[in-house]
Amino acid sequence: MYSQKVMDHFTNPRNVGEIPDADGVGEVGNPRCGDIMKIFIKVDGDIITDVKFQTFGCAAAIATSSMATELIKGKTLDEALAITNKTVADALDGLPAIKMHCSVLAEDGLRAAIEDYKRKM
Amino acid sequence: MYSQKVMDHFTNPRNVGEIPDADGVGEVGNPRCGDIMKIFIKVDGDIITDVKFQTFGCAAAIATSSMATELIKGKTLDEALAITNKTVADALDGLPAIKMHCSVLAEDGLRAAIEDYKRKM
Ligand code: FES
Repeated sequence: MYSQKVMDHFTNPRNVGEIPDADGVGEVGNPRCGDIMKIFIKVDGDIITDVKFQTFGCAAAIATSSMATELIKGKTLDEALAITNKTVADALDGLPAIKMHCSVLAEDGLRAAIEDYKRKM
Repeated sequence: MYSQKVMDHFTNPRNVGEIPDADGVGEVGNPRCGDIMKIFIKVDGDIITDVKFQTFGCAAAIATSSMATELIKGKTLDEALAITNKTVADALDGLPAIKMHCSVLAEDGLRAAIEDYKRKM
């Protein structure tokens, strides 16, 4: 059902946790399944220097959140905003069609964290 | 969002794994979110002597599957069939309404495993 990359990021997720002094925090819910995810970012100038996430979501939500955090670390805010759930799913060698909705959680969480940062600036 | 019992069974799920020489195996998918779960039972006479599960589902799916396996171990097949997703959710001190669909996975998986056992008898 899942690609090797999805299984890798599900069983060994990167950047799980929280950042107590985060510059931006995004907390979002998935309307389709009710799962939630929280993402924390540290920003220096224009660069996302650190990112952590927490989720109660399923395997696909964990894997896409993990991959999304890897993709945005060290990127500028604009580069991070250009990342969509499709980008993340592609980086994982795809997701089953029925699980694509789970990848929206990572994209929404990321955008919410960046918006939170901009609001506080 | 989740009760203490849900968090306990999510972070420390009971009976995770597989039974290679299982007497019945149920594999079911959740049409609402696309998550899957697999349940293995050992049956002696009329009694479920062992049970294990695997799921790629969310926190609520893991917790309800874990609790369901605890509830059916040592029970007769008829007692196990009387257990519904509502029974399991109640045993966990409830689930958020939006996550009740996740608990159906455990009930369906359990029924499928018992049906598989009866078919093979
Ligand atoms: S969201 Fe799929 S089982 Fe919970």
